[in-house]
Amino acid sequence: MKKVPMYLQIAQSIRQKIDRGEWVIGSKIPTQREIAEQFQVNRSTVITAIDILKSEGLLEGITGSGIYVSNNQWSLLSSSSPPNWKELTQWATQPSSDHIVQLINDSESRKDLIQLSKGELGPDLYPHAEIEKSLIKVTAQLQEFGYGNGLGDKGLREEISRHLLTHGMEIAPENILIVSGALQALKLISIGILKKGSTVFLESPSYLHSINLFRAEDMTLKSILVDRDGLVLDELFQHYIPKHSAALYINPTFHNPSGTTMSTKRRELLIERCQSLRLPVIEDDIFRDLWIDRPPPLSLKTLDKHGQVIYIGSFSKTIAPGLRIGWLAGPETVVKRLSDVRMQTDYGSSYLSQLLVKELLSSGLYEKHLLRVRARLKEKRDFLLHLLNEHFSHDATWDKPAGGFFIRVVLKDKINMHRLFKSCLNHSLLINPGFIYRDFTPSIRLSFAYATEREMEEGIIQLKRNIKNNL
Amino acid sequence: MKKVPMYLQIAQSIRQKIDRGEWVIGSKIPTQREIAEQFQVNRSTVITAIDILKSEGLLEGITGSGIYVSNNQWSLLSSSSPPNWKELTQWATQPSSDHIVQLINDSESRKDLIQLSKGELGPDLYPHAEIEKSLIKVTAQLQEFGYGNGLGDKGLREEISRHLLTHGMEIAPENILIVSGALQALKLISIGILKKGSTVFLESPSYLHSINLFRAEDMTLKSILVDRDGLVLDELFQHYIPKHSAALYINPTFHNPSGTTMSTKRRELLIERCQSLRLPVIEDDIFRDLWIDRPPPLSLKTLDKHGQVIYIGSFSKTIAPGLRIGWLAGPETVVKRLSDVRMQTDYGSSYLSQLLVKELLSSGLYEKHLLRVRARLKEKRDFLLHLLNEHFSHDATWDKPAGGFFIRVVLKDKINMHRLFKSCLNHSLLINPGFIYRDFTPSIRLSFAYATEREMEEGIIQLKRNIKNNL
Repeated sequence: MKKVPMYLQIAQSIRQKIDRGEWVIGSKIPTQREIAEQFQVNRSTVITAIDILKSEGLLEGITGSGIYVSNNQWSLLSSSSPPNWKELTQWATQPSSDHIVQLINDSESRKDLIQLSKGELGPDLYPHAEIEKSLIKVTAQLQEFGYGNGLGDKGLREEISRHLLTHGMEIAPENILIVSGALQALKLISIGILKKGSTVFLESPSYLHSINLFRAEDMTLKSILVDRDGLVLDELFQHYIPKHSAALYINPTFHNPSGTTMSTKRRELLIERCQSLRLPVIEDDIFRDLWIDRPPPLSLKTLDKHGQVIYIGSFSKTIAPGLRIGWLAGPETVVKRLSDVRMQTDYGSSYLSQLLVKELLSSGLYEKHLLRVRARLKEKRDFLLHLLNEHFSHDATWDKPAGGFFIRVVLKDKINMHRLFKSCLNHSLLINPGFIYRDFTPSIRLSFAYATEREMEEGIIQLKRNIKNNL
Repeated sequence: MKKVPMYLQIAQSIRQKIDRGEWVIGSKIPTQREIAEQFQVNRSTVITAIDILKSEGLLEGITGSGIYVSNNQWSLLSSSSPPNWKELTQWATQPSSDHIVQLINDSESRKDLIQLSKGELGPDLYPHAEIEKSLIKVTAQLQEFGYGNGLGDKGLREEISRHLLTHGMEIAPENILIVSGALQALKLISIGILKKGSTVFLESPSYLHSINLFRAEDMTLKSILVDRDGLVLDELFQHYIPKHSAALYINPTFHNPSGTTMSTKRRELLIERCQSLRLPVIEDDIFRDLWIDRPPPLSLKTLDKHGQVIYIGSFSKTIAPGLRIGWLAGPETVVKRLSDVRMQTDYGSSYLSQLLVKELLSSGLYEKHLLRVRARLKEKRDFLLHLLNEHFSHDATWDKPAGGFFIRVVLKDKINMHRLFKSCLNHSLLINPGFIYRDFTPSIRLSFAYATEREMEEGIIQLKRNIKNNL
């Protein structure tokens, strides 16, 4: 454990005083000078601490009078509850990642920025006509709808089962659980099946590092190296794998953030060894439908003959994230268990969203939409590759992804990536620096899915300029 | 702790053998006779244990050959993970409640039953025309939609804020968090704010007992008596209230399951005392819009001047549960904190559902729909009261609810409620026995919202017959 910075120690000390009732609600707190003297720090440190407590709603400033303890029990509970304090300390020991992820999330809704970061289809790829046509049909056929079944709409599960067959996966509707996106699927697995304190192996870099998921359940994340062929198996299997409290999380197809796809040979080997070592596998396969050059290798799930793999899919990347529709597939007992946990969480996904996706699938409009998406993604990927060749051929390396949204660009020169990120943001360009995925080379995840060609061009030129200014 | 029944002990022992690898995956297990001898029990006890393990996917029977250890790592994890085992033991020590709740949930989708249990509007009250009209408008105006803001659609929050004003509540859109139903609101509060091991005070009886919510977070539930005026305050405040690790969960308006509404005077007193004792309050107010005779007293939230109350509302009871749209309102810091937790859970609610509700509210169609709902609920409530008068005036007591869905009928004679419940179910009638809400008088929660008048009549006669046969 690193040392907790002074301003956080002061904030926590004040929090405890309020919590224990030593500083009574509604009362004025000592002056900044007094607190500074007590802790032997600068006033600016005290001001930082007080700002944190104000943002938590514990203190309030009254102009011309001083700082008072707020009369708000929920704020107190909320700030003294363990998850919050834990996050604050995490933030303290790893200020970079969480803070920058927060900033990226907040910036993604800004219309004035060029978004070379955003992992979703751009407005040009939103299926306007298909959704409109489907919604009209859904509206006309809509009957009264109640809480529904724990697994999700049966018709939708049947359509997903049929769709998975086109990828060579034979998964019955009873083995599918509809969820509100891949994140919820992971959340359900983490609270419903894995034990607290489990070890989760994952790729290095991994998208998972940028979300607060398994960390929140006190799990240990162990990063495994990835090369051009995907996860390096020897790296994985040289680790001690604790029996029954470990799992492998893997995104083998059009990997986020590196764009890599695992070869078929390695997939076969991975499944074979995971089976013999009894290491369960969570396969995050949300980009599968978004192949560009040729259909990807068979999923791990297809190669898995013993229910070793829980498979996760989603329509967030292929239709629209706001639908909040994804699914997970696994052995029936596991799916049943997760559906129970799910029913204790939020009683299922929006029926309206489920019907819309079902209609898009059953009408064939989804497949039609995918054809257009793939063609456009090819154009956009090739355009971004062309821009990189033009502007970065001496300064960076990258691989051509065979599908998905992302190109991982690794700069040749060492550069302060925090400074580069902020410098770009100040110049209206949003990029995802590799370190939020625990990629500590000077790398950037660029997305070709969201921005227009014009924005990409402007963005790449802006990026180059900012790199030069920050070397 | 009560003693764990033998069949669960055997199941757990077998689970451990598989878990530790003592019984190898794919191998045949000892015969039932051998196990029975080892544990000195009847074969039927062993069969029960094996059935449990089969249902968990740990064992499989191969006809004519015997019972084998299944080769499935996820099933093993899933069954040996702590929540499952905990539930199993809970089930063992309180077999009645959880088992019956499960049975009720499963039976609620059966079309062949008379549902005097179901806490949702019947097909006759589903707003067909309003939803169709609104969906057509939503479809025509729909633009591309992404992940959206952590708090939920701004326009919807503005509409909810405006709607709450009609109930005298001044709540700014920034203080509202859109959630996927009231259950999710409670879940977010329980994992995001309350501490593990907190004490949650709640009404006796309470709907909360029928869901596995605070229990799952190791919280202690303390039941407080309710009379015709609502929660009995002296009962609450005679308890020791542990500072900063307690909250009051309360459903003061058209209470589920008792139908009671707390008087204004008592509300004022409650808020005053909760404020001075610094006991935070969770006000579950999902039935407010469904008043029948006159608008209900002001909400606790309205009386609360210091952010003591987190307020929960929903459209599940007034429009349709399948929308999965509800909200919570509280101090801005608390709402912000819960919205962060929420974004780490499932990235928000269906945008489509949000737009539909927004349109229903802004067009005035929601208010129009409520007028019809209130008029019909009055007819249906009065009809059920009439049936009770006709058939139960000598055998039971009840109060007339001023709104909501439920009448709590307390039988005068002692009767085995488990047997009555099952007997009714065998005669195609589904009722909610009071004990699932920890109401240990011989009581039944009847809903007049779902069934038609004809079904109610048939149901009440059937109920009377079954009571007679089970006395």
